[in-house]
Amino acid sequence: MRVAIVGATGAVGQELVALLEERAFPVSALRLYASSRSAGRTVTFRGAPVTIETLPADGDLDADIVFSSAGGSLSKAHAEAWASHGAVVIDNTSAWRMDPGTPLVVPEINAEAARGHRGIVANPNCSTIIALMALAPLHRAFGLTRATVATYQAVSGAGATGIDELTRLTRAALEGLQEAPRTFDHDIAFNLFSHDSEVGDDGYNVEERKLLLESRKILGIPELRLSATCVRVPVYRAHSEAIHAEFAVPVDPDEARGVLADAAGLRVVDDREANVFPMPRDASGRDEVLVGRIRADASRPGGIALFVSGDQIRKGAALNAVQIAEALHR
Amino acid sequence: MRVAIVGATGAVGQELVALLEERAFPVSALRLYASSRSAGRTVTFRGAPVTIETLPADGDLDADIVFSSAGGSLSKAHAEAWASHGAVVIDNTSAWRMDPGTPLVVPEINAEAARGHRGIVANPNCSTIIALMALAPLHRAFGLTRATVATYQAVSGAGATGIDELTRLTRAALEGLQEAPRTFDHDIAFNLFSHDSEVGDDGYNVEERKLLLESRKILGIPELRLSATCVRVPVYRAHSEAIHAEFAVPVDPDEARGVLADAAGLRVVDDREANVFPMPRDASGRDEVLVGRIRADASRPGGIALFVSGDQIRKGAALNAVQIAEALHR
Repeated sequence: MRVAIVGATGAVGQELVALLEERAFPVSALRLYASSRSAGRTVTFRGAPVTIETLPADGDLDADIVFSSAGGSLSKAHAEAWASHGAVVIDNTSAWRMDPGTPLVVPEINAEAARGHRGIVANPNCSTIIALMALAPLHRAFGLTRATVATYQAVSGAGATGIDELTRLTRAALEGLQEAPRTFDHDIAFNLFSHDSEVGDDGYNVEERKLLLESRKILGIPELRLSATCVRVPVYRAHSEAIHAEFAVPVDPDEARGVLADAAGLRVVDDREANVFPMPRDASGRDEVLVGRIRADASRPGGIALFVSGDQIRKGAALNAVQIAEALHR
Repeated sequence: MRVAIVGATGAVGQELVALLEERAFPVSALRLYASSRSAGRTVTFRGAPVTIETLPADGDLDADIVFSSAGGSLSKAHAEAWASHGAVVIDNTSAWRMDPGTPLVVPEINAEAARGHRGIVANPNCSTIIALMALAPLHRAFGLTRATVATYQAVSGAGATGIDELTRLTRAALEGLQEAPRTFDHDIAFNLFSHDSEVGDDGYNVEERKLLLESRKILGIPELRLSATCVRVPVYRAHSEAIHAEFAVPVDPDEARGVLADAAGLRVVDDREANVFPMPRDASGRDEVLVGRIRADASRPGGIALFVSGDQIRKGAALNAVQIAEALHR
């Protein structure tokens, strides 16, 4: 298959190149697109250099699959044109996720939805994917009705500049200096803050609204009640989430653990004796989302509490996109 | 009043000395006790040196007020003896908190309970104090019935060694090295993990159980349902908590904001437009607990979601203890 990556130099773009190679995706030709700043540089793919290009004006990316991760406005403006030249666009941005005609897909959960695409398949938001990897199997078994979620989100969600900023500001803080933040509104060094997205009239920010609306769409539960508090923490590249979930039937925690242990793409890390549970350090660079702290919700009979960590760049973005491509290819 | 501090060299002990001076507590004589390692060193109080001593064998600390923060087992073994010599022991450890004869006090919430002491007044756990500073006024107004809490806890909860460890391991990580953790089970640098306390058969760790049981006792709601997920984050000295709360009556978020704005010891930081909410950076070194993200719980009609940050060493420990002493003095 001819593959193109739009936004090839970003954190997700680089991970996409690595994953296509690592997973031996059947790539017959790879085109890498980025801004004019990066054009002309080369990236090594399967031992050979691929030159980065700027986007062609005619919208023909010379590809069967286009991975788009260069921002929502670019995808909004161009994804349909790219698709009109015969490509399937797998869009890593928020542009098409809530479009009723666009499937929103986590392959372990709703791979079949991808088949109904009209040229664009949307990749969900990272915090949604990581939460649903645990909530979807529980939903299939017990019928999810309500969840409260508190996130611990890595700086990689803001791309490579977020990663650089954490290093830069932490170095400064250790020197006793305070440098101005550039990527975030607030200083992330030894600090945390409410997610850096716009806050609506209901008090929820855009990230939190994504978690609610995307979960409803992916799980097919339009009436799902979900309230999230999204928080940025000084961690590089894996998101964690503390979740309380309620179901249509009372759920036994051992039964829940069994369901999670059998679920694809999840790894149960739940060693109470050794106090070993999901940590971003362990989730980083790994395909599986880690789930643990599985226990009966002490505040709601029949409810379940749990904690997940997942690599934000991999399963939260690039890996999920490649898995969508793999599902389409099959 | 003659004042003694047991554990004078720890993070909380040092803060107690600073607060007694800063708040002009009526100290007629100050005795500082610590282990033999520190004995003989001096600490400056109101411009004069105070020599650190080891504990006297006879249990007479020569004090009207004893602040105890040298660990639960020491308090368990000796607090009654100290009290038998006429002192009121304000205990910063977990030793006496759940003892039915010992009041557990947050002065803004239940100062009157301190009056019923029999020689010992217990200072609650830091994460409990910080959560209840926001939940107690809401409880008084609306009747708290249930809460889910996810914490973002600073390393200072493990004392001065936790603070040193965050610096040491972060420096190492920035050099590309990985040093072994000493204070915590896991590496805290650019990482987070489930709270480093023992996990019980129900899957909750000791810190989470404290939040439940101490909240019930302080608020006087034996049937309160509360489920917490306690997480250690790479932050120095302020704890944050994402809270979803349910009440006996439906609560309007604006009404809740009004109640919180009027509550003693709280500061509402809730600027949706500027995306400024409670942050540990801002809460550190400050007496008030910060509260924001006040909004209707999207998952439960009538419920409220909010986010708090409070200095773990001050209001979470030393300040609350000094406020108890002030209440007793009045």
